[in-house]
Amino acid sequence: MIDNQTSGVFVISATPFTADGALDLESAKRLTEFYLEKGASGLTVLGMMGEAAKLTPEESLSFLDTVLATVAGRVPVVVGVSAPGLVALRSLSLQAMERGAAGVMVAPTPNLRTDAQLTGYYRMVCEALGPDVPVVLQDFPLALGVQFSVDCLLQIFAENPQIVMLKHEDWPGLAKLGALRTAEEAGAGRVSILVGNGGLFLPQEMERGADGAMTGYAFPEMLAQVVEGCKIGKRDAVEDIFDAHLPLIRLETQPGLGLAFRKEVLFRRGAIASPFVRRPGPKLEAADMAELDRTLARLEKRLAELA
Amino acid sequence: MIDNQTSGVFVISATPFTADGALDLESAKRLTEFYLEKGASGLTVLGMMGEAAKLTPEESLSFLDTVLATVAGRVPVVVGVSAPGLVALRSLSLQAMERGAAGVMVAPTPNLRTDAQLTGYYRMVCEALGPDVPVVLQDFPLALGVQFSVDCLLQIFAENPQIVMLKHEDWPGLAKLGALRTAEEAGAGRVSILVGNGGLFLPQEMERGADGAMTGYAFPEMLAQVVEGCKIGKRDAVEDIFDAHLPLIRLETQPGLGLAFRKEVLFRRGAIASPFVRRPGPKLEAADMAELDRTLARLEKRLAELA
Amino acid sequence: MIDNQTSGVFVISATPFTADGALDLESAKRLTEFYLEKGASGLTVLGMMGEAAKLTPEESLSFLDTVLATVAGRVPVVVGVSAPGLVALRSLSLQAMERGAAGVMVAPTPNLRTDAQLTGYYRMVCEALGPDVPVVLQDFPLALGVQFSVDCLLQIFAENPQIVMLKHEDWPGLAKLGALRTAEEAGAGRVSILVGNGGLFLPQEMERGADGAMTGYAFPEMLAQVVEGCKIGKRDAVEDIFDAHLPLIRLETQPGLGLAFRKEVLFRRGAIASPFVRRPGPKLEAADMAELDRTLARLEKRLAELA
Amino acid sequence: MIDNQTSGVFVISATPFTADGALDLESAKRLTEFYLEKGASGLTVLGMMGEAAKLTPEESLSFLDTVLATVAGRVPVVVGVSAPGLVALRSLSLQAMERGAAGVMVAPTPNLRTDAQLTGYYRMVCEALGPDVPVVLQDFPLALGVQFSVDCLLQIFAENPQIVMLKHEDWPGLAKLGALRTAEEAGAGRVSILVGNGGLFLPQEMERGADGAMTGYAFPEMLAQVVEGCKIGKRDAVEDIFDAHLPLIRLETQPGLGLAFRKEVLFRRGAIASPFVRRPGPKLEAADMAELDRTLARLEKRLAELA
Repeated sequence: MIDNQTSGVFVISATPFTADGALDLESAKRLTEFYLEKGASGLTVLGMMGEAAKLTPEESLSFLDTVLATVAGRVPVVVGVSAPGLVALRSLSLQAMERGAAGVMVAPTPNLRTDAQLTGYYRMVCEALGPDVPVVLQDFPLALGVQFSVDCLLQIFAENPQIVMLKHEDWPGLAKLGALRTAEEAGAGRVSILVGNGGLFLPQEMERGADGAMTGYAFPEMLAQVVEGCKIGKRDAVEDIFDAHLPLIRLETQPGLGLAFRKEVLFRRGAIASPFVRRPGPKLEAADMAELDRTLARLEKRLAELA
Repeated sequence: MIDNQTSGVFVISATPFTADGALDLESAKRLTEFYLEKGASGLTVLGMMGEAAKLTPEESLSFLDTVLATVAGRVPVVVGVSAPGLVALRSLSLQAMERGAAGVMVAPTPNLRTDAQLTGYYRMVCEALGPDVPVVLQDFPLALGVQFSVDCLLQIFAENPQIVMLKHEDWPGLAKLGALRTAEEAGAGRVSILVGNGGLFLPQEMERGADGAMTGYAFPEMLAQVVEGCKIGKRDAVEDIFDAHLPLIRLETQPGLGLAFRKEVLFRRGAIASPFVRRPGPKLEAADMAELDRTLARLEKRLAELA
Repeated sequence: MIDNQTSGVFVISATPFTADGALDLESAKRLTEFYLEKGASGLTVLGMMGEAAKLTPEESLSFLDTVLATVAGRVPVVVGVSAPGLVALRSLSLQAMERGAAGVMVAPTPNLRTDAQLTGYYRMVCEALGPDVPVVLQDFPLALGVQFSVDCLLQIFAENPQIVMLKHEDWPGLAKLGALRTAEEAGAGRVSILVGNGGLFLPQEMERGADGAMTGYAFPEMLAQVVEGCKIGKRDAVEDIFDAHLPLIRLETQPGLGLAFRKEVLFRRGAIASPFVRRPGPKLEAADMAELDRTLARLEKRLAELA
Repeated sequence: MIDNQTSGVFVISATPFTADGALDLESAKRLTEFYLEKGASGLTVLGMMGEAAKLTPEESLSFLDTVLATVAGRVPVVVGVSAPGLVALRSLSLQAMERGAAGVMVAPTPNLRTDAQLTGYYRMVCEALGPDVPVVLQDFPLALGVQFSVDCLLQIFAENPQIVMLKHEDWPGLAKLGALRTAEEAGAGRVSILVGNGGLFLPQEMERGADGAMTGYAFPEMLAQVVEGCKIGKRDAVEDIFDAHLPLIRLETQPGLGLAFRKEVLFRRGAIASPFVRRPGPKLEAADMAELDRTLARLEKRLAELA
């Protein structure tokens, strides 16, 4: 189970498909092992970047089963369960927990606007799940169009102790992160904060009090190194490495298209058998491939200089 | 099967739940019979106002089976299959068609903006479904945030002959409706056009060339009467009746809340066992109930005057 | 000056142009007299439906001067001053107040989402204006994409006593209106609440505690009659008249296009010399004109029956 | 005048204010000289990042006059004139051109969605301006919510030859840029393409055929160096320098907050007397300042290594 002290790097797992678009469970096993080897302290499956919305209900469960069986308890696995209705959300959550998930991740439905709507929504969600299911709240305004203020988040956390983690991907979001930690020092309860946005601000976010990252960047070992380095006060030592990755992170954080870059890199690294992205979805063109070749070559060169 | 000549009133079916929120298949049968008695020339299930997104996958299929078995071929049944990914959309569509659906309804995904994105999307959808599945295109900017121009619709219809029907609920939408019919006279292929928006502009839309309505107003017999009256050139005779309903239609077309009014009226008319709306969803308060009492009483009085 | 007891019908004034698009100050005088004759208890100028954003700064002031000179103190005049920046908002407000306005109307900027952003914004606005300028808060989610919860409004009103009036056009909005009045009875300060949305729910809104209407429907005498009738407990007597207008109100409340209908009706009633709407803006086509002819004829006939 | 061959770096000028928020014309002169010294081949004033919407009409003109007088014809100056109405847009444009502007920049109004609406809008704009005013089309979906397809842009350019330049800041946007250049080779007319987004993809965009940048990054000399280097086939030589700036560019491209970082850097570099941003607007907190200190120090160190 995850809790409000959980830290490290939870990799948002891609969902691998074969070149003709079928769910590829063999690659799912290989990818899971890859993530664990590269330093993942947890996994998150069936998230947005995992193309969850493009799976059939049966595919979702069979992918989840494969990942859980491969992980075999070595690290916690969080499951994305966001859905328009509470019955479906509850149903998927309970199935996931029974199968061995460590918690569920819930994004707000895109129609929510006011603080009252948001606090009301998470109250309903937690009531539907029952108190024993640990919840990660996903705060991702760019993708969802929903904004949480610091006060609103604090109220939601205070009302629902089972929400033990925040997936923080507001942008800009450093001030929000700092304000949450300040409130904590002033007596608000603690939540674990793992940051998203492809890790674009990871060193800065660790400085403001993040516990780690929850994102799917195709070099999770770098994320793990930065999180670890920052935690032990060695930000200087790791930020050069982080900055070397920044040109590639920038390619991967492009809305929509970024996923195609991510899967292509995972494919090139041998973690999945095909970079296929299900439709509707992005596709790399020849010039993108050339740009990626160049970016990876420059990354390698720069890392060699730093080594 | 529906085709490009289909006309009349396709009722968007509510999905009935028991007072504690379970899917109520007994009421589903009763409601289906109610719609047929009140003059439905077709049904549409698993649409937005059918709370499709709040059903589990199993519930969706069992509700669909119940409706199809009750209808028993008396009228065509269209099934809402909109989904973020094509695999899931295709899977639900084929299941629906095998079970006896007359066609599927596909709304654009909410991220689509340009004409190229929209034409590309429907090309992908039709390719995924295969040419034998009749498709209804749902044009509902208020709910989806997606806008189709007349030219864009004409291009989509020309490229995909299996799209035989437009569910028209742009707002304002009369000029668009007229322009589509003008293009048809100038040689563009015909599509059936059924109008939504709770029927708010039904007489005006019939005047501009609509073939009927596809909406869930709780008095479908009035919709049928207006469609029929307008078709045979007796708009004057039916518009007084339509206008008598306008105060109630106005209550039912309120975004979100309207569904609670609709289910309450269906409940009062004996068509379903409970007006329950699944969460997250609207709920009537005492003042709403009082307003509905009054509105229904005034409607009855006015209809009596007109009789 | 307006205050928190202000009631009645504040007509949102159209801005008249000549047939070739120039600002028409002669028609501005005539239109102002027309509104006063038809029972306006106040006017609101330079609002959205007054095409304020399509005037040059010089035109705005000269139109305002003309209206104020014509009104000559007979009724209060509220001025729309919404602007992206506070310096411009303050500058226009102070100019308006010096010229004799009774208050200013401020909509939120469209980027605001959280309660904290909204309360912060109105704090800044009131600080910039100084405490002596009465403010109307415009709550219009459909047009602005900004949503206020009841709690958020109550906090804004409590913090800024100079906000004496709410222009209420949330949709659906009856529950919000009722909740504000309930809070008032429980000790929150009073604000005047005038309703918008073309008056589409006026009798219902009066029932829930509205003080009147602030909208630009082209038959303000009906609005005045309904507000007065509801206040003295004669809702039954006026609701038939209201319902007779509902088909036309429905045409006028269509987003965008509604303004063209409104100006056409004002033109036909002799209140302005041309129905011209500045570009970019809507235009009626022949079929719209025919529909309007019919709607007005039916309105006249129905009113005759009721007389 | 700008034309369809214009290239280089057009700096989006900040608008300087004194520490108490007044327009600072002395700093405007200094900032203009700073931009020219650092390699600007043109300036763009009264854009979004120039806080144009927060100026009064008088301030806009006096700032424009100051910049034009300081530039004194050394480089072309483009003026942002986007406005909700065509009368105001035309009026500001003609005033700007009379004063010596080299062209005007027009973003779409935020309500536009379909290709037909967008092509119609630019047709109206060009008709209102007359054929002698060179126009820059701003394509900035993240800020405006409006999306142009490649086909839509090509149609707009073909219909309106006075639109000589595209300010390209779609995100992701590399494929669009490439497609526009491919269409050009296939016979579509040429437009100049300058890229925005803080320069975040500048080397990549030059590779795809951009003519330069139009953005306000606080180190314009780097932009000029990259544009020049890429043009003469020395991308390798300049990309290390670009990548060294990427951590700072990332801070500056944060929506909203980025402007505060930009003005703070301009202030530290001595280009303006105060980093003040008008309200409503972002403000740096202590932790932001510390992060900026660190980022600038690391930039300096890295540039030294590369020198």
